[in-house]
Amino acid sequence: MTKPSSAVMELSVAEVPVATLSKRLCQVRAQTESLVSTLSEADAQLQSMPDVSPAKWHLAHTSWFFETFILCEYRNDYRRFNDVYNYLFNSYYNGIGEQYPRHQRGLISRPSLSEVMGYRQHITKALCQLLESQADNPAINTLVELGIHHEQQHQELLLTDIKHCLFHNPSYPAFMPNTSAYPYSEQALEWLDIEEGLHNIGYSGNGFAFDNEQPRHPVYLAKARIASRLVTNGEYLAFINDKGYQNPEFWLADGWAWLQTQVSLGSQSTLQSTLQSTPQPTLAPLYWVYQQDQWFEYTLHGLRPLDMHQPLVHVNYYEASAYANWLGLRLPTEYEWEAVVQQQSLSTPTADGQMHPNQLSPQSAWFATAWQWTTSAYSAYPGFTPFSGVAGEYNGKFMSNQYVLRGSSCVTSQHHARSSYRNFFYAHQAWQFTGIRLAK
Amino acid sequence: MTKPSSAVMELSVAEVPVATLSKRLCQVRAQTESLVSTLSEADAQLQSMPDVSPAKWHLAHTSWFFETFILCEYRNDYRRFNDVYNYLFNSYYNGIGEQYPRHQRGLISRPSLSEVMGYRQHITKALCQLLESQADNPAINTLVELGIHHEQQHQELLLTDIKHCLFHNPSYPAFMPNTSAYPYSEQALEWLDIEEGLHNIGYSGNGFAFDNEQPRHPVYLAKARIASRLVTNGEYLAFINDKGYQNPEFWLADGWAWLQTQVSLGSQSTLQSTLQSTPQPTLAPLYWVYQQDQWFEYTLHGLRPLDMHQPLVHVNYYEASAYANWLGLRLPTEYEWEAVVQQQSLSTPTADGQMHPNQLSPQSAWFATAWQWTTSAYSAYPGFTPFSGVAGEYNGKFMSNQYVLRGSSCVTSQHHARSSYRNFFYAHQAWQFTGIRLAK
Amino acid sequence: MTKPSSAVMELSVAEVPVATLSKRLCQVRAQTESLVSTLSEADAQLQSMPDVSPAKWHLAHTSWFFETFILCEYRNDYRRFNDVYNYLFNSYYNGIGEQYPRHQRGLISRPSLSEVMGYRQHITKALCQLLESQADNPAINTLVELGIHHEQQHQELLLTDIKHCLFHNPSYPAFMPNTSAYPYSEQALEWLDIEEGLHNIGYSGNGFAFDNEQPRHPVYLAKARIASRLVTNGEYLAFINDKGYQNPEFWLADGWAWLQTQVSLGSQSTLQSTLQSTPQPTLAPLYWVYQQDQWFEYTLHGLRPLDMHQPLVHVNYYEASAYANWLGLRLPTEYEWEAVVQQQSLSTPTADGQMHPNQLSPQSAWFATAWQWTTSAYSAYPGFTPFSGVAGEYNGKFMSNQYVLRGSSCVTSQHHARSSYRNFFYAHQAWQFTGIRLAK
Amino acid sequence: MTKPSSAVMELSVAEVPVATLSKRLCQVRAQTESLVSTLSEADAQLQSMPDVSPAKWHLAHTSWFFETFILCEYRNDYRRFNDVYNYLFNSYYNGIGEQYPRHQRGLISRPSLSEVMGYRQHITKALCQLLESQADNPAINTLVELGIHHEQQHQELLLTDIKHCLFHNPSYPAFMPNTSAYPYSEQALEWLDIEEGLHNIGYSGNGFAFDNEQPRHPVYLAKARIASRLVTNGEYLAFINDKGYQNPEFWLADGWAWLQTQVSLGSQSTLQSTLQSTPQPTLAPLYWVYQQDQWFEYTLHGLRPLDMHQPLVHVNYYEASAYANWLGLRLPTEYEWEAVVQQQSLSTPTADGQMHPNQLSPQSAWFATAWQWTTSAYSAYPGFTPFSGVAGEYNGKFMSNQYVLRGSSCVTSQHHARSSYRNFFYAHQAWQFTGIRLAK
Repeated sequence: MTKPSSAVMELSVAEVPVATLSKRLCQVRAQTESLVSTLSEADAQLQSMPDVSPAKWHLAHTSWFFETFILCEYRNDYRRFNDVYNYLFNSYYNGIGEQYPRHQRGLISRPSLSEVMGYRQHITKALCQLLESQADNPAINTLVELGIHHEQQHQELLLTDIKHCLFHNPSYPAFMPNTSAYPYSEQALEWLDIEEGLHNIGYSGNGFAFDNEQPRHPVYLAKARIASRLVTNGEYLAFINDKGYQNPEFWLADGWAWLQTQVSLGSQSTLQSTLQSTPQPTLAPLYWVYQQDQWFEYTLHGLRPLDMHQPLVHVNYYEASAYANWLGLRLPTEYEWEAVVQQQSLSTPTADGQMHPNQLSPQSAWFATAWQWTTSAYSAYPGFTPFSGVAGEYNGKFMSNQYVLRGSSCVTSQHHARSSYRNFFYAHQAWQFTGIRLAK
Repeated sequence: MTKPSSAVMELSVAEVPVATLSKRLCQVRAQTESLVSTLSEADAQLQSMPDVSPAKWHLAHTSWFFETFILCEYRNDYRRFNDVYNYLFNSYYNGIGEQYPRHQRGLISRPSLSEVMGYRQHITKALCQLLESQADNPAINTLVELGIHHEQQHQELLLTDIKHCLFHNPSYPAFMPNTSAYPYSEQALEWLDIEEGLHNIGYSGNGFAFDNEQPRHPVYLAKARIASRLVTNGEYLAFINDKGYQNPEFWLADGWAWLQTQVSLGSQSTLQSTLQSTPQPTLAPLYWVYQQDQWFEYTLHGLRPLDMHQPLVHVNYYEASAYANWLGLRLPTEYEWEAVVQQQSLSTPTADGQMHPNQLSPQSAWFATAWQWTTSAYSAYPGFTPFSGVAGEYNGKFMSNQYVLRGSSCVTSQHHARSSYRNFFYAHQAWQFTGIRLAK
Repeated sequence: MTKPSSAVMELSVAEVPVATLSKRLCQVRAQTESLVSTLSEADAQLQSMPDVSPAKWHLAHTSWFFETFILCEYRNDYRRFNDVYNYLFNSYYNGIGEQYPRHQRGLISRPSLSEVMGYRQHITKALCQLLESQADNPAINTLVELGIHHEQQHQELLLTDIKHCLFHNPSYPAFMPNTSAYPYSEQALEWLDIEEGLHNIGYSGNGFAFDNEQPRHPVYLAKARIASRLVTNGEYLAFINDKGYQNPEFWLADGWAWLQTQVSLGSQSTLQSTLQSTPQPTLAPLYWVYQQDQWFEYTLHGLRPLDMHQPLVHVNYYEASAYANWLGLRLPTEYEWEAVVQQQSLSTPTADGQMHPNQLSPQSAWFATAWQWTTSAYSAYPGFTPFSGVAGEYNGKFMSNQYVLRGSSCVTSQHHARSSYRNFFYAHQAWQFTGIRLAK
Repeated sequence: MTKPSSAVMELSVAEVPVATLSKRLCQVRAQTESLVSTLSEADAQLQSMPDVSPAKWHLAHTSWFFETFILCEYRNDYRRFNDVYNYLFNSYYNGIGEQYPRHQRGLISRPSLSEVMGYRQHITKALCQLLESQADNPAINTLVELGIHHEQQHQELLLTDIKHCLFHNPSYPAFMPNTSAYPYSEQALEWLDIEEGLHNIGYSGNGFAFDNEQPRHPVYLAKARIASRLVTNGEYLAFINDKGYQNPEFWLADGWAWLQTQVSLGSQSTLQSTLQSTPQPTLAPLYWVYQQDQWFEYTLHGLRPLDMHQPLVHVNYYEASAYANWLGLRLPTEYEWEAVVQQQSLSTPTADGQMHPNQLSPQSAWFATAWQWTTSAYSAYPGFTPFSGVAGEYNGKFMSNQYVLRGSSCVTSQHHARSSYRNFFYAHQAWQFTGIRLAK
């Protein structure tokens, strides 16, 4: 049995001094605001599909979260900044009240972006005052900690969402100037061993962790081997060129059905860009674009020639599964993934300003590159206890029909890069930075 | 046979001096721009349903129309302002090329509103230069005239569209301050006679008219009687209170099917606002809102108590037909409508800044209030000749499955208020300012 | 002004002796039953799309019609054969009560076919008794007459529906052995003149006619020319080979949108059969099948090689319109059609047992071949009065969004082959025997 | 660690004498045929939704399975009974070829039921000849064994499918006369303990088992308690009466979304029958019918008053999950279920001719009553090896988005009642006999 270790070690939540918490709160809030500095008010309102939320909505919703779960609860005299915001910016908390329809978030032109910025200032200031005045209230500290991590999750969502939105503009605008070194070099794929036996899975440290990562519990694993790095664009292109998208034998039944739907959507498909422009029409991952006899990839840095050694991103579970089947391999379970990471000696990934996967460090084989699909359905660990109160809706009610992704992506907060972190999406979704790690 | 007369008399297009044309062009262009003066960039990008286009798109498309049909055709050295605009702002002209998907126009955050304003300046200036340099080219003059009328049509669409978009904001924002006098007084309904026999229908003057209003031709009409004014809110409320929306006997089969779809859409229905808030749940026209035991109506001047003597607007053909059936009456044909208007002596309606129906003049019984549904399907007059060239797609290809509306609404250009003008929409559509005139 | 004449002359309904009426009733009832003699119970229950009803349902519904409108009304002691039939076999009469969902008619396995046959015997017998006992009741006679024509309409529907159902069987079964002479010879197309002026339109005789054919009224027509025969398969194939289905310039906007939907449906499309099997994939009319480098056509006599001189059938309004546009021609209005037929001297078509268009007589240029699309939307004639009572739902409530077809098809009752008869379908529908007559 | 034991012990497949195998084959084939003895040809063709197949299709498909996987493979001279059957009756084996669209299986009126019966005779006879002539071929024996179990699975499906089909008939026909004793008495609910530690899960005996039950492998379980019996109708009714269907706090997010869809479907919903007839409109499980102030339940024995002590059936995963949450409990995992069954000493359930759950024996708490939802997503066991060849499509490709159900229902073959058997359905499906076992 391997010695468990969390990839990122943090202080116990209870031990963090209030001044530190206040400072982190302000930093994270400022960081969110800096993300929209290059966006116009029109950009900030884009909603390209129901799964996606406008940047402005993320800015407001994260403030609403602090307001609703902390200010309204712990400040007797608190009056909401604007009552209609409680309807507009409640995401899915039925315990709080009705919600503005999710698929219409792109229709909220008012409040304006600057009014939302004013809302943010108001909330941040009120939170700091509350933290000062009730410095010894652990319940508040815990909720602020949750709110910070919640906001960091929305920083990531804001980036994945705006990428999807800007992609619908035929000029393929760059969200941020391209600063990455090119091209990448080939990296060897090695197979890491997992020993048969019991492995402890789940978070057990003193820092912050979500309810769904707990409690830590033993899982019996069979002997297995896990790839040391992610699948590259070039490797996946070989699958495409071998007619992988045309051959049902590699695909899950649901995956093949999804694929036929995309084919009939034609130019409306999320796989749209390659349908009509390749010599022989084919499908390809979201954001791949075929132009002038060449493959390009849309990134937050704009449209770039596809780099064959760069990690593949934006495949869904069906594509990941079909690719693995094509090779006679499989995807790992979330337990295998966590067990093998616990064996590594990894340092915290550091931000490099890149918003597309790179391969500069061994660390980046696991974190800060692309989320990695596992075959594990998202469900409760034995003894799972949801967060208390209305925050209990945070994770638990989504435990059906979704798959766990492990690791973290190039746009994930580094504070979420821990071995026990569980991300989850539906099998058909690919707009997150999702990649493939193989197992056998 | 009655003496035909056009409600609005204009000079022959060919006779208009270029300086006058240039001046009118500039006025109309400026008028369009003034319409968005109260809108933010976020407002200007709203698209609440596929039928609706963002205000910014209207601003750009009307410029694209002049650029494509005049500048590209008649100025040898002309280079498009931006090639991608020819894809983004082409509405439906297959003869020109592919079009950006209509239902995604709300995703065009770039170009920005100010870039589009720059585009507008560029086009207006280039047009004025062309008109000066080729003052004696009647083909250009005719196309500029068409472009002016096209832009006036889009001024109206911009207003009907932004109304629909802002309605989706739970704060019911006013597009423009409310300046109208309240309340309205009751107006008597009289029945105007149409004589049996031949009536000449269609445009025959020297001014501008669309291809679909021509040629003028005789139509044999039976004896009939037409209401002297439109149906009011109060009259329609009596239909609602008599369970008109619950009784299939009044409805066309397609109308009843449409109604059942709306019922099952529940709060997603376009009839959403009244479903759950009335004492006994019922349906009601688009933009009616029931709050605190009272009916309100959303207008471009904001939410206002429903005025019982004001003309009803925003009903679709099915609602108009059911209301008439409930009374044992019917809607007029477009020929009856035009014949009876030719009998009136009407002056040109003048703009009063109101963006909701009023009843201040006899003229407003016919024009400048609400479009009036007729039972006439939109089709070609005998001998119909479409505009030449690509502009032939302007009207002809829409001649199926739509109904003709006559008159004009409170947001229609007064230059379109003529007895021969034919507007057309699908039977289920109600977001235009559409009302009911009865016949028997 | 031309001398009006109905193509088929009948005695006044009031004058028909009861014995004659009884005999005709029994003949028509028996004729319906003979239509299903080659069908198994499984065949008789097929429903391939919501528009289509199972043969068994037609057998039962026509009996329900007589039971509900006559027996329940005019026989005091009458008790329904089975109460649940009043729910199952009511087509669309809201005045009678709720209806079993139309799209689920294929799920009515009970009553069985033989129980339905028993129901038919029961109703026919009860009707004959009623006719004898109340021989002098003109209201009953009129309703029996209506019921006979109603049943004849359903004989035609039964055949068009079973054709659509059996087509979904990959063995392309023949409904009836093929007895027609082959191949057809070319027929010259001539242009028949319509004089400008008033023409009387609508039924005016003493025989039976539907409410929607009345009252007869004058219509002013412009000079026009109408084709003397229908478009052939060979002529339409030239349109296909000229990429008619790929070129939007020929199509109505709604038609082009319909076409794109069919393309994305792929093999699920009603145009399915030709999509993947032609050298260059194309679309083609419903029931055309491309196999082994050759075009075939599915008919009620089975799959047969496409005959180039045979009249084209099973195109919808969009296809008919696009074909006419491709030639620079147009379709006629229903008034032009009726006016030109009134000029002909035509005898009643006689049944020849063929269930596919033939060209053996001049008569067949107009009747007993294929319904002919007109550009006239289906609406009420001036002074239209619906049938009284619940039968008022028979025609009137369908007067929206449909197009009038004139003539009659190879499977229409010869008693419906009159110049004033108005059939009506939606523009996208093609499963009726619908063809093209050109005008200019 | 508990002592594993399979609920049903069988001889090793390899050891079964051919004569015994032949006899079992003939028995199972005859048993399938006896299931349709009360069905008309029309009944046998019903398909009420895409998930459901007609009884005739089940009869043919099970024959096609033997023909394709055995006769075509192991008899050199074998010619298919009818080539088109290979298209019509292939369920989902892409390795074999194209399939007739699943949702259109109700349109296969030809071949007739008697032709399909002839096909069955032909296949059974050919199989018996093959078994005799190649008595020592273990590959054939293994495939015949698989085919027998496959046919037994389709016997169950045939019954669940015909139940759904006949339910759509407003006369609620009984598939089979009702012979069960009434009413049931209350049974106490006890909690059975599972010890923390390793438990062996999966099939390991010598008899037949599906690939997805293997290999047997250790799973570490936490301490847990499992209910000794299923939830009853009366217990579930308390949930309904407590507004369980109106309160989002009990529901998974996907479940609540599914529920809203059902509400808007109204009378088209699968939950249709109770929507409009209860005093206060509510939802209720599939097959519950509210009539004359009383709850009824549709069963294969017809419509019967709801028995409050009878086990609840026909809830989907969302309903099962919401019910458990309402009580503050949860559903078991499939490992917990199997572990606790291994602790019982259970005999093979014997058929009693009932086609609705009963409670006559302790055995029936686990098997032969209702399938039991678990929180385990359907996925591969460590080291999973699919059946070889095309039969590899049997189970593996469905391992996404489905939930495992354990136990067996009142219409499952008793030969499938083993502790390792894994059934699987989508969370929204309820037409199988699916019930609830609680855990904590």
